[in-house]
Amino acid sequence: MSHHLTKDMAIETPDALSKMDIRVYYEDTDAGGVMYYANYLKFFERGRTEWLRRLGVNQSELAAKEHRIFVIKKVEIQYRKPARLDDLLAIHSQITRLGRASIHFDQSALRNGELLCESSIQVGCVDANTFRPAGLTHELKTLLEKAQN
Amino acid sequence: MSHHLTKDMAIETPDALSKMDIRVYYEDTDAGGVMYYANYLKFFERGRTEWLRRLGVNQSELAAKEHRIFVIKKVEIQYRKPARLDDLLAIHSQITRLGRASIHFDQSALRNGELLCESSIQVGCVDANTFRPAGLTHELKTLLEKAQN
Amino acid sequence: MSHHLTKDMAIETPDALSKMDIRVYYEDTDAGGVMYYANYLKFFERGRTEWLRRLGVNQSELAAKEHRIFVIKKVEIQYRKPARLDDLLAIHSQITRLGRASIHFDQSALRNGELLCESSIQVGCVDANTFRPAGLTHELKTLLEKAQN
Amino acid sequence: MSHHLTKDMAIETPDALSKMDIRVYYEDTDAGGVMYYANYLKFFERGRTEWLRRLGVNQSELAAKEHRIFVIKKVEIQYRKPARLDDLLAIHSQITRLGRASIHFDQSALRNGELLCESSIQVGCVDANTFRPAGLTHELKTLLEKAQN
Repeated sequence: MSHHLTKDMAIETPDALSKMDIRVYYEDTDAGGVMYYANYLKFFERGRTEWLRRLGVNQSELAAKEHRIFVIKKVEIQYRKPARLDDLLAIHSQITRLGRASIHFDQSALRNGELLCESSIQVGCVDANTFRPAGLTHELKTLLEKAQN
Repeated sequence: MSHHLTKDMAIETPDALSKMDIRVYYEDTDAGGVMYYANYLKFFERGRTEWLRRLGVNQSELAAKEHRIFVIKKVEIQYRKPARLDDLLAIHSQITRLGRASIHFDQSALRNGELLCESSIQVGCVDANTFRPAGLTHELKTLLEKAQN
Repeated sequence: MSHHLTKDMAIETPDALSKMDIRVYYEDTDAGGVMYYANYLKFFERGRTEWLRRLGVNQSELAAKEHRIFVIKKVEIQYRKPARLDDLLAIHSQITRLGRASIHFDQSALRNGELLCESSIQVGCVDANTFRPAGLTHELKTLLEKAQN
Repeated sequence: MSHHLTKDMAIETPDALSKMDIRVYYEDTDAGGVMYYANYLKFFERGRTEWLRRLGVNQSELAAKEHRIFVIKKVEIQYRKPARLDDLLAIHSQITRLGRASIHFDQSALRNGELLCESSIQVGCVDANTFRPAGLTHELKTLLEKAQN
């Protein structure tokens, strides 16, 4: 789960590394006064989704046309410091490995450059009906490989 | 939105009025230290779902076999007192009116008999694909009418 | 709950009417294939929060410095058409009435100009510890009145 | 993350292993038709909370009286099969290690004995204000050690 977030990518760049700013609202917090631990996974999914959208991948179209959806196979997540109400978090998303039917991401949440939370997330591509692994389409793989380099 | 919760129904009774106990966990609270306002709607849905299940209505079967799902058309909700972490809330659910393709509920959340939140919720029965109104099946209507009396 | 959304406000305008675009992600949807009904309340809160922020009101500062927080007293919400995964919703927020310790909003969610959901939401200002009504501070009231006109 | 769930514990047993049944409602699912990946973390927290409650540990009291709250430090979670609407999941929670200011859990979600999801979760005990590590109180440690054996 090492991170090398040295590049400060413009948000439009269809590159391996991307950044999305997300605000912490009341819905994201809990009675401990901080962001609820499960909700980082929502922020990370928004980050992955926008990363894919910038590449030209729309997940609802992928489901409708190719009958493929992405499911999460494995998550490792470490919480370093709590995020609080009204914080603006920078979600960094980086593709680390492409499998036949999987995409591996490193994702992290930073506040003013300070690392709050980091994760490694393994996403599987499956058939929308059977949920059995389905290889990434050639078009998708080409897009992702280009982004990875 | 008047409530007459005078009967203390046994939980197995397929009657118009039912009660379900739900605990408030961290996931339900926010940084204000109380239950987040949208989450009462989750508790109320759990109450309606279990009320229907006790009548013999399983919503995932209804979707698979009859291609009908329930959607919410309208909600009026009043928040009287805040619920807090670890509170045990009694969710009361009462059917108030049956339409051709709709069910009207009064629902409330109480803590030790004290009213925290009350709502009137209009549920529509729609086709699972088109989301157009679909009349309650005869079987469903019969079950609901029996419960209403 | 009538809406007159005739003005197309620039997002920076500290005016009575504001607009915020929010994307529908997987987290917002349910197995019916559409946005889950409680989640509109999250989107509406994001809309109110950003509306207040543009006026210069930061809720976490308000809590820390003035010991006042906003709580929801009443919601009326009507669901007209379902939102779906990847939809981009425009959240319109308009202040309709200011009380001594309350703010009334009309809020709606539109997709490409089509009304999906509309609501009237009554927000109360309370003491952060006792949750008893606390009058809007003079500064806050002045800001809100200016925005209302 | 190996699991040896051979014992079928009665739910009242203050033992190292406990089981809690939780129903999957619409709120837990997403447009893929299955349980949303972040929501397993909510179910696991409910499982830990009830496990602690049965031991006599009430987290809201712990916060109020001892100014200690539990925060999540690290999660490893593997998703094996999807849960669906109306599924009844058995959440198994087992303490695997006790540190000075931490508790390690193995938790899993099963449906009719079939493993859907398993996790290792490291919980830290921190001061409720500073969020710095705070040793488990003697009373808490005694309770947890008894449960572990």
